[in-house]
Amino acid sequence: MEYAVGIDIGGTLIKTVACDRKGTVLYRDMFETRDMQPAEAETAKVSYWVDSMNMQIDKIRKKLHAEASCVGIAAPGVVDERGSSTASLPGKLKGIEGLVWSEVLKGHYPVEMLNDAHAFLLGESWIGCAEGKKNAAMITLGTGVGGAVMMDGKLVRGTIGRAGHIGHICIDPFGMKSICNAPGGLEWFIGDYSIGERTGGRYRSTRNLVEDYKRGKSFAASVWLYSVRALACGIVSVINLIDPEVVILGGGMTEAGEALFGPLSEMLDEFEWRPGGHTVRILKACLGEHGGAIGAARNVFDRLSGSRRK
Amino acid sequence: MEYAVGIDIGGTLIKTVACDRKGTVLYRDMFETRDMQPAEAETAKVSYWVDSMNMQIDKIRKKLHAEASCVGIAAPGVVDERGSSTASLPGKLKGIEGLVWSEVLKGHYPVEMLNDAHAFLLGESWIGCAEGKKNAAMITLGTGVGGAVMMDGKLVRGTIGRAGHIGHICIDPFGMKSICNAPGGLEWFIGDYSIGERTGGRYRSTRNLVEDYKRGKSFAASVWLYSVRALACGIVSVINLIDPEVVILGGGMTEAGEALFGPLSEMLDEFEWRPGGHTVRILKACLGEHGGAIGAARNVFDRLSGSRRK
Repeated sequence: MEYAVGIDIGGTLIKTVACDRKGTVLYRDMFETRDMQPAEAETAKVSYWVDSMNMQIDKIRKKLHAEASCVGIAAPGVVDERGSSTASLPGKLKGIEGLVWSEVLKGHYPVEMLNDAHAFLLGESWIGCAEGKKNAAMITLGTGVGGAVMMDGKLVRGTIGRAGHIGHICIDPFGMKSICNAPGGLEWFIGDYSIGERTGGRYRSTRNLVEDYKRGKSFAASVWLYSVRALACGIVSVINLIDPEVVILGGGMTEAGEALFGPLSEMLDEFEWRPGGHTVRILKACLGEHGGAIGAARNVFDRLSGSRRK
Repeated sequence: MEYAVGIDIGGTLIKTVACDRKGTVLYRDMFETRDMQPAEAETAKVSYWVDSMNMQIDKIRKKLHAEASCVGIAAPGVVDERGSSTASLPGKLKGIEGLVWSEVLKGHYPVEMLNDAHAFLLGESWIGCAEGKKNAAMITLGTGVGGAVMMDGKLVRGTIGRAGHIGHICIDPFGMKSICNAPGGLEWFIGDYSIGERTGGRYRSTRNLVEDYKRGKSFAASVWLYSVRALACGIVSVINLIDPEVVILGGGMTEAGEALFGPLSEMLDEFEWRPGGHTVRILKACLGEHGGAIGAARNVFDRLSGSRRK
């Protein structure tokens, strides 16, 4: 049996899958990311990642009674041109930056690295709700806000691999700087990481904020609808700049369901430019939490067959 | 002698060129766009455009003692998929929307239509300062703000031809709506059309505003530097979304020179995300006022040789 392992390393959870070439998901799992302290030595951080990944790959091997053909890894940040490691990852997941996976994994598999949101979009275009779409954008809403862009059926990497960082488009020229220096970056307006700051310490999670919004609490509604308005503005910017067929929203925050998609749709009715009545579809991601891992698997299959993304 | 006529129809001026296939500009001219009143009949508006264009093509024919092989036309708005006419042009240049040029020009030339900022970028990539670049963005600063995006060496048209409308990315979620409904659209922050509104009626043109900024007037500086800050935010959004090698600024406002590029560069030092020290180059367009017309000529040559943009 030929299969690829896909691993999606996030700040909270690490998701793993095994997929065959047709996109059948043979195995899926997830576990919590260990919260490493700044005081821990660099070597400790690196060996944590290496050991955890080796353990996961081994677990899948035992489960499927076969060796993996290749390993695809997804993580936040900018991936180097060869797809071998994360070249830049400001302020997150210490130890990942610069780690060349193919050199440290026990089995010496072919390994291909991809930005996590890029991987998610690739997964959605493989077996999810962007299947058959040539032009698409993805926005992941969680602790932070990630994104990806596909044009003419190909993931857009950009000049240095930075393309798709939708969380760092500017929504307010005098707003708080995002971790990538963007003033009023979209991520600040809706990412879970800033919820305390945005609510004067009143809320610790977007989930609680949305619950109070649903209960009709005005303060909560003012904050949440401002976040959704910022998201609508970000989507409008993406639409007017690259003109996708579809915008896919993924990440934990999409579990808010109608509390997110209802007001978002109403605001897009106000803000979206619709020449000839054309309306861009806004969809919730189909693949759920394992979308990034599935895309990471697809990405390494693409490399093996020589059709590397540019 | 084989040549293409390139015509760039703007709100203030119409520019014409004749180019051969190598990109040699054999002829260039410009004339004022007639300001048509809303009361004028649709037929009057259409015949104005048709008559003017026929007259220009005829003028070039006499000058060069040869018939044009083809005609490329650039204008603002969204061009239809076949490149035959402007499908959507909200609130400008009445009579252009829906006009199929190949049916109305006297010589029945092959005609190809292109968005004006798209044409400008195509011109710059042909014989200007984006030559040899695969990933580039263009922003035109004038009465309005236009834009274009090139990826992997190809102009990005998008799903319905809307790509590149950088003037309509959102800079402020509660800002004034742009003509394309974008709240706080970049165009509103720096386009000449809103200068009266943005200065409480104190200024009628950005040129005068910039003169007072250079003289050290504080009010003028506050407005102008806010505009430049908004532009820096727009550029940062473009960089973080599509990751170009170069961003080219064109249009009349770039004549402000150091008064524009100086503060812009300082703000980008603050706001631009520069993984590994990588800095995106910001350049002033090389082709000047005829860039759009030159790109329109190139575009119709591309069509004749079968390599149509998608």
